[in-house]
Amino acid sequence: MKLEQVEGYEYIEGGVCAAAGFVSGGCNCGLNPDKAKNDLGMIYSERICSTAAVYTTNKVKGAPIVITQKNLEATGGKARAVIVNSKNANTCNADGEQKAWRMCELAAQQLQIDPREVVVASTGVIGQVLPIEPIEEHIAQLAADLSPQNHEKAAEAIMTTDTVKKEAAVSFKIDGRTCRLGGMAKGSGMIHPNMATTLNFITTDAAVSAGMLQKALGEIVKITYNCLSVDGDTSTNDMVCVMANGAAGNTEITEEGDAYESFKTALYLVMLHMTKMLAKDGEGAGKLLECICEGAPDLDTAITAAKSVIRSPLVKCAMSGADANCGRVLCALGYAEADLDVHKIDVELASAKGSVMVCRDGNGLSFSEDEAAEILAEDEIKICIQLNQGNAKATAWGCDLTYDYIKINADYRS
Amino acid sequence: MKLEQVEGYEYIEGGVCAAAGFVSGGCNCGLNPDKAKNDLGMIYSERICSTAAVYTTNKVKGAPIVITQKNLEATGGKARAVIVNSKNANTCNADGEQKAWRMCELAAQQLQIDPREVVVASTGVIGQVLPIEPIEEHIAQLAADLSPQNHEKAAEAIMTTDTVKKEAAVSFKIDGRTCRLGGMAKGSGMIHPNMATTLNFITTDAAVSAGMLQKALGEIVKITYNCLSVDGDTSTNDMVCVMANGAAGNTEITEEGDAYESFKTALYLVMLHMTKMLAKDGEGAGKLLECICEGAPDLDTAITAAKSVIRSPLVKCAMSGADANCGRVLCALGYAEADLDVHKIDVELASAKGSVMVCRDGNGLSFSEDEAAEILAEDEIKICIQLNQGNAKATAWGCDLTYDYIKINADYRS
Repeated sequence: MKLEQVEGYEYIEGGVCAAAGFVSGGCNCGLNPDKAKNDLGMIYSERICSTAAVYTTNKVKGAPIVITQKNLEATGGKARAVIVNSKNANTCNADGEQKAWRMCELAAQQLQIDPREVVVASTGVIGQVLPIEPIEEHIAQLAADLSPQNHEKAAEAIMTTDTVKKEAAVSFKIDGRTCRLGGMAKGSGMIHPNMATTLNFITTDAAVSAGMLQKALGEIVKITYNCLSVDGDTSTNDMVCVMANGAAGNTEITEEGDAYESFKTALYLVMLHMTKMLAKDGEGAGKLLECICEGAPDLDTAITAAKSVIRSPLVKCAMSGADANCGRVLCALGYAEADLDVHKIDVELASAKGSVMVCRDGNGLSFSEDEAAEILAEDEIKICIQLNQGNAKATAWGCDLTYDYIKINADYRS
Repeated sequence: MKLEQVEGYEYIEGGVCAAAGFVSGGCNCGLNPDKAKNDLGMIYSERICSTAAVYTTNKVKGAPIVITQKNLEATGGKARAVIVNSKNANTCNADGEQKAWRMCELAAQQLQIDPREVVVASTGVIGQVLPIEPIEEHIAQLAADLSPQNHEKAAEAIMTTDTVKKEAAVSFKIDGRTCRLGGMAKGSGMIHPNMATTLNFITTDAAVSAGMLQKALGEIVKITYNCLSVDGDTSTNDMVCVMANGAAGNTEITEEGDAYESFKTALYLVMLHMTKMLAKDGEGAGKLLECICEGAPDLDTAITAAKSVIRSPLVKCAMSGADANCGRVLCALGYAEADLDVHKIDVELASAKGSVMVCRDGNGLSFSEDEAAEILAEDEIKICIQLNQGNAKATAWGCDLTYDYIKINADYRS
């Protein structure tokens, strides 16, 4: 996957521990019967962190979401730790909030912090009671093993149907001070825009106030995770959480300006990279799809149009079959909830193998089917839409729809 | 499939020719290279018909939709014939409207009527120029072969990825006069609510004014076709057209009252039956899914909730795999755009083999997985939702999501 390059920003290793002062770990506590797979993860910063989060907009909210929201409200956007499990979403259970709070207490006890300084998250099956004993029994071991080297263990602990772990990090400068920002993500199916997104934890050693951190997160999530669709379904447990501990020593960012913009670019690069990783690892995905919509009257129209195309099951099937069916793209633009003149639209399909114009002024074009099939046989496809109705531009990310998506989800709980 | 029974209404044979005075036919004109498959169909009534139609809400509208709308406006909702082809949607082509109008002229010439009295429709691939020659060459043969016996030939002519032809008809009484109402439908993928629906032609010998026909169609489409989702995609060419020629001899229905209600029930039964046939024959479908949402504060909320569940790819996959995953249902209710108290919801899954409660008060229940799997192994599944928030009720129909949906759509144009 090609990484977007911006001068002054360097991609580095380290994931959620790339930033100074963060340690993490992960283990198998037994929620996952496969002992080789981690199911419990922790992140910790001794320095208190400004903490911002966005959550799913699903009305069925996981109990951990409810507890995390309460905690961050109580502390005014401060936290020191994250505790997270996979395999069980702790959602739609009568004792869900009690269990989520118990997870905070267990983590806090080990780290000798206030349980309200803990962010809690769960992902997995909905509607099954979360057994707390495996977590109680393994929390000490997990806390004892925390280290800056163990970022991969934490990244593995949040994987569900993910086939690869997802980490990204950059280093950059604010006030001449070197800062780092990195994160980890999980999420493969049940990922859809309009909603928070997926489970993501991002840490930085830059000093940023809780308010400016929340503002930056809101701006960047709109053009990254919220432009990602795997299947149009929206999870009950999704959360993106950013923690800033200030260990880099820059003057705390408390208002807009150059420092804020520099920080936001770092956040954008990491979230963009993780968005593309999430799309490419969508459940059953064979191809990464990128829909670039240009020439829109405004940003919201560009986003709506790009997302409508990326979400369409028929577009996704056509791309799976390397079928340059421009009708599927136009149809999805036609039902997008945006004010578009469909008679002005041009569509081009592209990959590393070249590009082919399939539609001009809303009308299908003749093209070499052989050439088109060769272009679409690649595993990263760009659907380039020119609306010819303005200057705004947006990109949405997704994947093709394949047999494996159905295989994975026909019997998800087993 | 169980037919809904209403006293005084009898299911009969005859499809689009069940009503007196209607003839139809179908042939292969060569748009479909498989000569065994009809691709051109015609319906005709010598008596002029009150004609009502609803269309797709997609902004990319097929040229035939545009021409039919113009024709019905010009005649004030009167028509005598339908000409329809499959294999090519005549959409997103620069010469589309010209070709659609030419189809009206060709039919009118044979039938010696005004071309504006012709309803024209096309379904198939988008963005490829419609060759008009095959239609020109076969129109005389098609018109010569029109008969009340040939309703199946017409029903076959509109099939695309449909695996069975879809016809339904009832007889009933108005003012002591026997009336008949019947229709044919096509549509398998790219069927979604919120929009018109799929290609449907319904005829009746009841006398109904154009205005009351449009009113009845609007009311019934809302609770039948518009509650149907196969994949969430919405075609550019969908249309439901009802023609009433008055041959039954009842006093023309020009206002609400008993006669209007009797007529509407007939329309409901035929459209309900075709809706279920469309759902069961959804692309790649292995099972008919029916989501019955009760206890809603109002009808719109009930419809929105039922449709959100029936549309969810994850619910569809779970049903395909006979997995009683209540989390998928609750999740889909949670992101439905309706004001729901998710903590009051009960969910039951049912089939001919029995039923199992999987959720009460928004919390997952324990149940026998073996029993649930046996119930869900059936090919008609009911997802019964009790919102416990009022007295309104609605049903939505769909199908499971299977490998075959992807197989069909990965290379639709070949």
